[in-house]
Amino acid sequence: MKNIYEDLSREELQRKCEELHKEYVSYKELGLRLDISRGKPSHEQLMLSMPMLDTLHSDMDYLSEEGIDTRNYGALTGLSEAKRLMADVMETRPENVIIFCDSSLNIMYDLITKSMTHGVMGSTPWYRLPEVKFLCPVPGYDRHFAITEYFGIKMINIPMLEDGPDMELVEKYVSEDPLVKGIWCVPKYSNPTGTVYSEEVCFRFARLKPAAEDFRIYWDNAYNVHHLDISRPRVIPELIEECCLAGNPDMVYKFASFSKISFAGSSIAALATSEANVKDVISQMKIQTIGHNKINQLRHVRFFVDRIGVMNHMRKHAAILRPKFEAVQEVLKEELGGTGLGTWTDPEGGYFVSFDTLPGCAKKTVRMMKEAGVVLTGAGATFPYGIDPEDKNIRLAPTYAELDEIRQALKIFSCVVKLVSIEKMLEEK
Amino acid sequence: MKNIYEDLSREELQRKCEELHKEYVSYKELGLRLDISRGKPSHEQLMLSMPMLDTLHSDMDYLSEEGIDTRNYGALTGLSEAKRLMADVMETRPENVIIFCDSSLNIMYDLITKSMTHGVMGSTPWYRLPEVKFLCPVPGYDRHFAITEYFGIKMINIPMLEDGPDMELVEKYVSEDPLVKGIWCVPKYSNPTGTVYSEEVCFRFARLKPAAEDFRIYWDNAYNVHHLDISRPRVIPELIEECCLAGNPDMVYKFASFSKISFAGSSIAALATSEANVKDVISQMKIQTIGHNKINQLRHVRFFVDRIGVMNHMRKHAAILRPKFEAVQEVLKEELGGTGLGTWTDPEGGYFVSFDTLPGCAKKTVRMMKEAGVVLTGAGATFPYGIDPEDKNIRLAPTYAELDEIRQALKIFSCVVKLVSIEKMLEEK
Repeated sequence: MKNIYEDLSREELQRKCEELHKEYVSYKELGLRLDISRGKPSHEQLMLSMPMLDTLHSDMDYLSEEGIDTRNYGALTGLSEAKRLMADVMETRPENVIIFCDSSLNIMYDLITKSMTHGVMGSTPWYRLPEVKFLCPVPGYDRHFAITEYFGIKMINIPMLEDGPDMELVEKYVSEDPLVKGIWCVPKYSNPTGTVYSEEVCFRFARLKPAAEDFRIYWDNAYNVHHLDISRPRVIPELIEECCLAGNPDMVYKFASFSKISFAGSSIAALATSEANVKDVISQMKIQTIGHNKINQLRHVRFFVDRIGVMNHMRKHAAILRPKFEAVQEVLKEELGGTGLGTWTDPEGGYFVSFDTLPGCAKKTVRMMKEAGVVLTGAGATFPYGIDPEDKNIRLAPTYAELDEIRQALKIFSCVVKLVSIEKMLEEK
Repeated sequence: MKNIYEDLSREELQRKCEELHKEYVSYKELGLRLDISRGKPSHEQLMLSMPMLDTLHSDMDYLSEEGIDTRNYGALTGLSEAKRLMADVMETRPENVIIFCDSSLNIMYDLITKSMTHGVMGSTPWYRLPEVKFLCPVPGYDRHFAITEYFGIKMINIPMLEDGPDMELVEKYVSEDPLVKGIWCVPKYSNPTGTVYSEEVCFRFARLKPAAEDFRIYWDNAYNVHHLDISRPRVIPELIEECCLAGNPDMVYKFASFSKISFAGSSIAALATSEANVKDVISQMKIQTIGHNKINQLRHVRFFVDRIGVMNHMRKHAAILRPKFEAVQEVLKEELGGTGLGTWTDPEGGYFVSFDTLPGCAKKTVRMMKEAGVVLTGAGATFPYGIDPEDKNIRLAPTYAELDEIRQALKIFSCVVKLVSIEKMLEEK
């Protein structure tokens, strides 16, 4: 889209700049303290799960359906009913599921650690290799990139297209380079772009021909049931099955958690993968722990019951979140629509809106927002090593704040984007 | 003690053997299914903590004392009040404490993993070294040894004496060999011997002069408040403070959990260590997770309040456990006392009784017990690599079973010990 300020004279731009600066100063003087930086559920969302706390009082039954005392040691890989619930949510089978503690990030971290020290299904431990590489669709999730950076794994940017990562590039790297051991994916309502991988993209993932026997797709389906309009949920192919059909039965690790369904950080998380991978993971897990919190598993099963229970619950989440995402779109359209100063996503689910400024404007925008009392995700955070090559991507996280706060934050954001863009244009004139 | 069968003739021994075999067969015919293999709390113990489930219902306050919403992300290292409670139990200060999930074993595993891949406070990652060694007081805890074995760390047996590990050997290894990076310790009511390290031993630990800058004492004080007679608790020196005074401020990692205080596997666990170590651990932890289950932390704080609350609670545990441990002593004394066929510990706390048969009799004893329907911890499990050089140590875990089951199991055990010992003597005659 054409930048509507492009044809203005230096004087006209300067005048505009002064106007915007006045507006910016007036915002600063409000002394706001807003935070739309992280994908946190709001108070209202958390209240939805409060009845879960009442599913296990002291006078209630604490046994699992198999008669396991959930208050004692045992059941390393989780209660059967918890596996069933998770399998339901993850669209796979209970025998493919291991239930962990409260964080799916922790599962991913542990898998990479295990691969570093012990390899994957008997492959060479990665620390013995001259180099290990991961493909990183960008923009992506900062905490994914932090794990691979921590282990010195070389990250390769893969552009995110409309329907998923650039599969031509992915196929090339994966099939040609045996040091490419993995790829980070958030296949539905991706963080931060909201992208839903197309069927075509998913099928191409399943049909990859990796040069490395221990290449794995880290399929972090964190937002699988986090639709903004539950009457029109997006559905993508189930990758364990697809990989199996394509002759790559062990190529995918799927992740999910209830963190943004029940309580963030106090829920249950899971890995779903082939039975051979499950066996491989257990060989490590049984050394690491005696078993995870089964009481919390029982609470989740009692409260959510099954996929229907989860979907009914997510409908209520959607009702809270939809107006917030709509507010973001409204303000951005009103303030920046048609200006050509930025593009942004309009997701159908997930927790984020991804905004691209003109090249070279993201860092300054985030800094000026902070000075005006509005915290955004750090510019660059959505890229490996924190380096956005074009310095243009900004992640907006509208779930936690109140509706009027979001409107206000986006109003200020729009002002700052305009101001920074025009200042940049003036510099370059 | 003299073996009273030693002077019997071959015929007398054979007669005795036949008698015992008849007794053994009669036990077998009972078709029992008893298990005294693992240190699990009993049903009655678990019931003590049921009111904890009522400390957070849906209509109750879910905020921490600092106003943190325990249902949302945040507070990576734990709630302040949870750190205070843990510090209280661990006899240290809240700033030395990090609260984790439900398993202290998992913390130990993660620390060893981190040391393998990233070293300790900037030291060379262990996987880059030609070899890494750990000292292992024996008999000891099988799950400790499993971790070091998993990482290919060479384990060196250190005899456990009356008042703790053989410190002369420990000092020699630690001061002379820079590849010795750690030692596994359960300093109070040790697993399985029940040993309480003496002040002298603790002070010698604090004053070690390690050849390796990244040597750490893995001080797993799992049974710190698990006294059998709470009116006479054993108290040992606090090692973070002692190490600090001795000029080794960062030499110890202390571990504890509520697994055998509240619910096994569904409680909270902690690391206590120097502030410099805390910082080092956080550098890894912040990559691994967003934070652990704070709702469970809040429940524990509300139910136990402080050290006094914990001690009152542990008094009730002791009242349940004491008769079980007394029963073990009674039966063993009655059946094997004065025979010279075995020696055993009489612990003042913890979860185990350690039994030594005559050399070469442990494996066969455990196998014959299993055939009679009584599961014991595998012989050898209390030694690195599962190898008990003298094949004599057997761990008895009397906490989980009912009193009459324990008596019966120990009665059968005594019969089998006698039978196996005499068969062995016959072989050697």
